[in-house]
Amino acid sequence: MKTMKAIRFENQQVITREAPLPEISESEALVKVSMAGICGTDTEIFEGYAQFSGIAGHEMAGVVCRAPGRPELEGKAVAADINCGCGACPWCAAGDPRHCQNRQVIGIRGRNGAFAEYCALPAENLHVIPQGLGMEQAVFAEPLAAALEITQQVHIVNTDKIAVLGDGKMGLLSAMALGHATGRVTLIGRHARKLAIAASAGIATLQTAADESAEALRTRLGLFDLVVDATGAAEGIQTALCLVRPKGTVVVKTTSRKPSRIDLSAVVVDEIRILGSRCGDIDLALRCLERGWVDVSALVEKIYPFRRFEQAFAHARQKGSLKILVDFEHKTGRGDY
Amino acid sequence: MKTMKAIRFENQQVITREAPLPEISESEALVKVSMAGICGTDTEIFEGYAQFSGIAGHEMAGVVCRAPGRPELEGKAVAADINCGCGACPWCAAGDPRHCQNRQVIGIRGRNGAFAEYCALPAENLHVIPQGLGMEQAVFAEPLAAALEITQQVHIVNTDKIAVLGDGKMGLLSAMALGHATGRVTLIGRHARKLAIAASAGIATLQTAADESAEALRTRLGLFDLVVDATGAAEGIQTALCLVRPKGTVVVKTTSRKPSRIDLSAVVVDEIRILGSRCGDIDLALRCLERGWVDVSALVEKIYPFRRFEQAFAHARQKGSLKILVDFEHKTGRGDY
Repeated sequence: MKTMKAIRFENQQVITREAPLPEISESEALVKVSMAGICGTDTEIFEGYAQFSGIAGHEMAGVVCRAPGRPELEGKAVAADINCGCGACPWCAAGDPRHCQNRQVIGIRGRNGAFAEYCALPAENLHVIPQGLGMEQAVFAEPLAAALEITQQVHIVNTDKIAVLGDGKMGLLSAMALGHATGRVTLIGRHARKLAIAASAGIATLQTAADESAEALRTRLGLFDLVVDATGAAEGIQTALCLVRPKGTVVVKTTSRKPSRIDLSAVVVDEIRILGSRCGDIDLALRCLERGWVDVSALVEKIYPFRRFEQAFAHARQKGSLKILVDFEHKTGRGDY
Repeated sequence: MKTMKAIRFENQQVITREAPLPEISESEALVKVSMAGICGTDTEIFEGYAQFSGIAGHEMAGVVCRAPGRPELEGKAVAADINCGCGACPWCAAGDPRHCQNRQVIGIRGRNGAFAEYCALPAENLHVIPQGLGMEQAVFAEPLAAALEITQQVHIVNTDKIAVLGDGKMGLLSAMALGHATGRVTLIGRHARKLAIAASAGIATLQTAADESAEALRTRLGLFDLVVDATGAAEGIQTALCLVRPKGTVVVKTTSRKPSRIDLSAVVVDEIRILGSRCGDIDLALRCLERGWVDVSALVEKIYPFRRFEQAFAHARQKGSLKILVDFEHKTGRGDY
């Protein structure tokens, strides 16, 4: 039996071990992972979210080794849509397996992910990475697609005054994605270093103190047509609702394990729309990256070689860290390994 | 000084007293109230909601005595839009004073209401009641407009599977309003007597026990495209979120003084839309009533004469009571006075 190195999360420990090389079906592809990103969801999974056990990792770029049903993909660099539908339900029939009730999600639900040398994926989930786009950028296709999903759910026009709450990875990506669509985006966060990344991408920024109330923010900034909650905190929605205008929209990107307390009366009186927003369109994200509409390079905190995964993961778990990447090929010039 | 009889809420007491006949400006009208409805919001105001003190009452039908700026209205039977805008802000300029930040709301915020013999109203808020429509029906224009507001916010099509939660007045009106737009509405409530009203209007109904979980309901009924929370309870949203399909819509009509606990992660993963919904279009409601699309007569629990307002209000506060009307003219044949 052929084996590969893989990372498993077990009992809140990161365990590197040999695993069997995945076998693939006629409709699947075997992808050699080149670069993987560590996401907040991965650290949440590590702590028990989604009750997933196995090989995690859902942000990846790699090269197709074998794809019996789509041989034209072999040798191609690819990024992957992480939702694998049942193929039979109305969602799948409509071409949107993201909401298939029986879906597997790579590295999150019922299917091994990308923290391994090789990964088996449905061939239809693969998107060819445009030539000239490096693996360091392409690995952002999944989280950037999630940020761009906002633009697919809400018709955003250039006069919209938009606030993004939270200067973490999703907040930065959302602000930069929305900043491509419209010129009136303000990123609100607490970290000068992170806000500077958005500022250099042309986004207005506002640094707040932890003790600044939502009401004080509203007095300073006025109301917004659209507010994105990317704080990652259960309380973020309260600030978002305080900053949104009547009939405005709050997009929720935060997935907290804690329930949120919401004054729904204010939502009713002001006829607010609250929209949950998850995964997006990988092709759209790749196009965005290829054309340089969103430059993610400043979001990379550090690149670790795969053999140092444990350190990479510990770094990703540090509060305030930006994107930690795991390089399986040891070819990039960045990082200190 | 001319006086009139009026009801004031003071220190959680209903007090009937003489009040000065309202003076009107050039842009206002003096309306002699014929019929007023007691709404759940009135009982909430009585208990302290909205910090309103004065003459409450916002569901009314009456006859215009004087309207200097719109003399063509004099002698006409009218219903009223309850939101009185500042006339200067962008909301008012766009013809929608419902969200004017400086609005007065009749009987709720900064302006006396209809629990009095006469009421001063901006003439532009008045809508002529179609001939042939009785005051007993026309007094439902305001709450029915609020129910119909759902159809103005969400594009409802005939294949939409809709659930309305709560068989109180707003739940019944919402189910009947939506039942006019589409054939697949189910009203879910706990009271056989109230569900029977919806059933006789052709709405599917489901009686639940207080201890039936949202998950059990979902197993029985499947998922819905649209769920309206008209339970009046802070917990209603949790049931609504359990019953809505991925990418579906939850419309919130409940205004509870208690905050709601919501698992926003599920809202994000399933990309749910939550929409607050308040007041609606009075003309639309009057047309709906005139043409018999929604028959509100079965919603009337009892009609009291104005001199027995205190009993009427006590009746309205009883748990489970349907619409209590107050008749200022003692002309209707219904009721036991």
